[in-house]
Amino acid sequence: MISKNQLKYIRQLEQKKYRRREGCFVAEGTKVVGDLLQRYRPEAVFATADWQAPAGITPQLVTDDELRRISFLQHPQQVLALFPLPTLNSNFSIQELTLALDGVQDPGNLGTIIRIADWFGISTIICSEDTVDAWNPKVVQATMGSIARVNIIYINLPEFLDSLPADFPVYGTFLDGDNIYTQELTREGLIIMGNEGNGISDAVRAKVNRRLLIPDFHQGETADSLNVAIATAITCSEFRRRQ
Amino acid sequence: MISKNQLKYIRQLEQKKYRRREGCFVAEGTKVVGDLLQRYRPEAVFATADWQAPAGITPQLVTDDELRRISFLQHPQQVLALFPLPTLNSNFSIQELTLALDGVQDPGNLGTIIRIADWFGISTIICSEDTVDAWNPKVVQATMGSIARVNIIYINLPEFLDSLPADFPVYGTFLDGDNIYTQELTREGLIIMGNEGNGISDAVRAKVNRRLLIPDFHQGETADSLNVAIATAITCSEFRRRQ
Repeated sequence: MISKNQLKYIRQLEQKKYRRREGCFVAEGTKVVGDLLQRYRPEAVFATADWQAPAGITPQLVTDDELRRISFLQHPQQVLALFPLPTLNSNFSIQELTLALDGVQDPGNLGTIIRIADWFGISTIICSEDTVDAWNPKVVQATMGSIARVNIIYINLPEFLDSLPADFPVYGTFLDGDNIYTQELTREGLIIMGNEGNGISDAVRAKVNRRLLIPDFHQGETADSLNVAIATAITCSEFRRRQ
Repeated sequence: MISKNQLKYIRQLEQKKYRRREGCFVAEGTKVVGDLLQRYRPEAVFATADWQAPAGITPQLVTDDELRRISFLQHPQQVLALFPLPTLNSNFSIQELTLALDGVQDPGNLGTIIRIADWFGISTIICSEDTVDAWNPKVVQATMGSIARVNIIYINLPEFLDSLPADFPVYGTFLDGDNIYTQELTREGLIIMGNEGNGISDAVRAKVNRRLLIPDFHQGETADSLNVAIATAITCSEFRRRQ
């Protein structure tokens, strides 16, 4: 049984300002909720009778119809849970290969990038303040559970880049960069991926000290751009295969 | 001005059976339509007054409101055009690196894969008959115009694989395959990518003679899967960088 107040509370969490105010986000489905439960204590778990709860978790039972009413999915999947927003660590420092996102807007792209980071063992993603919120229900869903294993930090990105030692490797991909397949790539460093339409912003571009190019293999035609998640995957793959 | 018959005709083209019957598909937006116009003669072009028509193209002028009514997009973009379905070449033979899709279901994934093929200079994609239709409006849109430059062929995939010489390299990615980063990769060959949930089907798996693995770089956790478009990008990148 879902109360009116619960319904209203959950629906509001679609919006970033309510997630920030309540310190709480929504996750759905057996895979995503299951992965998050391995790391985080939920604030609440709503599930239909067919959900197999892990040991120690007692869900509030709901009907299929109630689940549909609280769900953000077209096809709700057995369970919806509320988790506390991870605390942002302001004393963050980079000691390994790290991703930074400069204004990525599409929730599906951010979700896919989090999943790529998880696959390639990149434990932290730094996001500019204008990057879409990672605890948006669409992003959480698109991570397929990877959001449980990757730290995500929102920060003033140009200021953060200013705080790095001048010789710290900061990578970005550009049309006039050096071929990523033949360029030397360091084990540590920051890889910056830009906005879907405009790429890396001017303020951030000025801090990139290693300009890379993902070459295309077109025959005599103008090259188009790659989707930002695809470019992230190719770049991370290229860094990791060298190890 | 759009007639009732035109509206009905265009809306029906959302469905594969009508596209097949009419031999026609829908493309939208300046980029996608512009790329297609470089290759194909349109059957019809509907555009608002602000669209800059290329030389030789005279669109049927429509209002913003009319464009909204015929469009499949949330935010219609100046132009919608109808193009003839490309003729399927049944005498197809492989002489270069080619992609094959075995049951890819998501229109966004297929669109992204077509875009990846275009980037990496892969001119042909062979699709199993249960792969989502490439001329679905959502796929066409997700290709960002690449559908104008990549040949897409629907075929009985297991039968086609049977017709290949026994030693022709047929690649697939599997959890127990050989590390793609260190394995020898040929210049010619077929790369098979499977369904989002189930991977490569049994009938097709039996024909794969080079099993590859995209290794993950997790620290001590069960590896999750990669999205099929991401796996395609990493695989194509790895084949092409060796050239």
